[in-house]
Amino acid sequence: MKSCIIATGNELTEGIILDKNSKYLAERLKSVGYDTLKITNVKDDLSLIKLSIEESLEMCDIIFLTGGLGPTQDDLTVQAVSESCNIDIVFNEELFEKIKKYYYNKTGKYLSILKKQSYVLKNAEILQNPVGSAPGQKVHFNGHTIYLLPGPYNEMKAIFDTHIYDELKSNMKNDHVEYSLYFYGLTEAELMQEVSVILKNFDYSTKIEEYIGPSLRIRMQKNDDFEPILEKILSQFSRYFIGFKSLEITLFDVLMKSSKTLSFAESCTGGMLSDTLVSIPGASNVFKGSLVTYSNESKVRLLDVKKETIEKFGAVSEETVKEMAYGLKKIMESDICVSVSGIAGPSLGSEQKPVGTVWYGFLINEDFFALKNVFTGDRDEIRKRATYFAFWNILDLVRKRYL
Amino acid sequence: MKSCIIATGNELTEGIILDKNSKYLAERLKSVGYDTLKITNVKDDLSLIKLSIEESLEMCDIIFLTGGLGPTQDDLTVQAVSESCNIDIVFNEELFEKIKKYYYNKTGKYLSILKKQSYVLKNAEILQNPVGSAPGQKVHFNGHTIYLLPGPYNEMKAIFDTHIYDELKSNMKNDHVEYSLYFYGLTEAELMQEVSVILKNFDYSTKIEEYIGPSLRIRMQKNDDFEPILEKILSQFSRYFIGFKSLEITLFDVLMKSSKTLSFAESCTGGMLSDTLVSIPGASNVFKGSLVTYSNESKVRLLDVKKETIEKFGAVSEETVKEMAYGLKKIMESDICVSVSGIAGPSLGSEQKPVGTVWYGFLINEDFFALKNVFTGDRDEIRKRATYFAFWNILDLVRKRYL
Repeated sequence: MKSCIIATGNELTEGIILDKNSKYLAERLKSVGYDTLKITNVKDDLSLIKLSIEESLEMCDIIFLTGGLGPTQDDLTVQAVSESCNIDIVFNEELFEKIKKYYYNKTGKYLSILKKQSYVLKNAEILQNPVGSAPGQKVHFNGHTIYLLPGPYNEMKAIFDTHIYDELKSNMKNDHVEYSLYFYGLTEAELMQEVSVILKNFDYSTKIEEYIGPSLRIRMQKNDDFEPILEKILSQFSRYFIGFKSLEITLFDVLMKSSKTLSFAESCTGGMLSDTLVSIPGASNVFKGSLVTYSNESKVRLLDVKKETIEKFGAVSEETVKEMAYGLKKIMESDICVSVSGIAGPSLGSEQKPVGTVWYGFLINEDFFALKNVFTGDRDEIRKRATYFAFWNILDLVRKRYL
Repeated sequence: MKSCIIATGNELTEGIILDKNSKYLAERLKSVGYDTLKITNVKDDLSLIKLSIEESLEMCDIIFLTGGLGPTQDDLTVQAVSESCNIDIVFNEELFEKIKKYYYNKTGKYLSILKKQSYVLKNAEILQNPVGSAPGQKVHFNGHTIYLLPGPYNEMKAIFDTHIYDELKSNMKNDHVEYSLYFYGLTEAELMQEVSVILKNFDYSTKIEEYIGPSLRIRMQKNDDFEPILEKILSQFSRYFIGFKSLEITLFDVLMKSSKTLSFAESCTGGMLSDTLVSIPGASNVFKGSLVTYSNESKVRLLDVKKETIEKFGAVSEETVKEMAYGLKKIMESDICVSVSGIAGPSLGSEQKPVGTVWYGFLINEDFFALKNVFTGDRDEIRKRATYFAFWNILDLVRKRYL
């Protein structure tokens, strides 16, 4: 079955927001075996939306439209489907009462602007919105199924999850298995030069995990043998291999498996290492806590870094990250203590220490070592690269020591 | 001038990544006055890519294609443009030497797979890639300009910024001014019920800032008077008004303006408050540092929270965030000390304290107060909502006290 997704809104075509809706739908559709041919972002213009609908009807069995169901002048989706598919628009009294009640409960007001949201396509199945006012709609047209969903991500997702996903899943049988392989620190070309030969008889795709490295998705029949393929790939790339999950989740898994705890003293990364780890449910099993010591003063006061060390060698130096790591150890008593201090920019770089220079201290039991790297990019990119470099080195360390 | 953007790649149509490239291009194009009608994500399939190119040629003056310039089998962009526009493909010897050299310097290897990247469209202007191997290409066809750019975000961006942006800018004259207004804690419908009347003669668009509230972009002629419009809007919505910049940047600005410093003690937010603030260049002027005390043990040890307090009232309680805030004050000595402790889920909620419950402590000089809120969503959504709620309340506090 072939699917198309159309997301409407000037906020998309003007580059104000990323189209998270289509990514979510595309991923869900793929997971139940649908083949999404095209995702279109189109501005709030009736004739352009109609054109996109008509182009999609040419190629797909199932079409998702998101956005344009709100109460304002630039909400045009119902009208566009109506005109493209020649389906009447009708006022739905029952829906109007529901929407009025929803808003009254939420805001204590009655808003006349909401009346528009009660006009729906004739014979549409109304898909109740568990978290907002605008419901979804489902209509059939010439053998196609068309879904209209609201634009706010959480509302779109709630309607899809509640009313649509299970039905799509039960329509499809799926006898494929997909394997994901993640790599750190090599280019896609280096990987694919070899891997494209190994995988020449298989369906695969590659992706660049930003600031990390390439990942590889291999789709096989359920009874194909994956082991020999994996062996061939790892015989050449094992030293770059993260695992079958993303870098942070793989790190979390090996920490769990080895029952080791971790803590951070973060300067330029400003809490990003901690935040990335805490985003994983269950993080408290391996994560003891962090100190975000962004200023020199806080390094001295919280981590017992000597003032003279910073004065003599600078805050971004082997000596400073060493004292940071030992200070952290005293406070957190975690098995692994990692300190980070660098220059994220945009200013404050020098010839010896250009913007992007980051020093790391790793204290594991009683052993300490330091690493330096110089990352490229803007402030945000440097901080992200610095974060993943730390994760990769911790992962490597834990594997070599404990697994 | 009308523009279209086409991003190719199964990683897009399978929902593996967000299309950051098109967002960036659309935003840049908008800023110099181009009108992007449509953004298309299309899978790596020659006939589908050609179809998208042909549809875009129908409606636009200028077309950007991203992705599909790499060395692998699913890199089809050059061929698609060649066939759609009837332009020959030629081997570029000079480019081949450059790419070989680039890779050799980077990896110490020569990769035959890279030869493919040296086949370019005939008469194309080659746009050197400052940060990768695949260059961009620019061709003219029947009065249209077509740009081919590589898929990796930093490479696409580097080529666009270096070779394309200034030229586009000089092609357009721009006599518009755009005002952005950000709001916290009301719905788009509530805002637009009133504002759509005030703005009925102006060009505007709205956007939901996720986890925050609606924002409003108003475009006016350079000599239009914005003041009376702003006054009308604020007469009704001043208590929700963040300012003319995003929440975190507005908070940073008011802290700078009032010369006040801030520090955090974070539990469930795990470093997100710190990280969001540190993402702003110059953050060290207002940010003293943070303690990420994710475990109870670290709350006791680092922040001097009494063990009995946690045992009696729980880690997520008014009493605990109060002791956290006072403990933080002792360590950081910042003007404003904010503590956060909550249940981000997915498990560990209870009837009295469901998942999403978050307690905050605000200690400003000698005054303390606590706030509780219950946020909805999954783990990540709860942590983000909790972060912005804190920022909004700090902003409100600083404005009322100091400005």
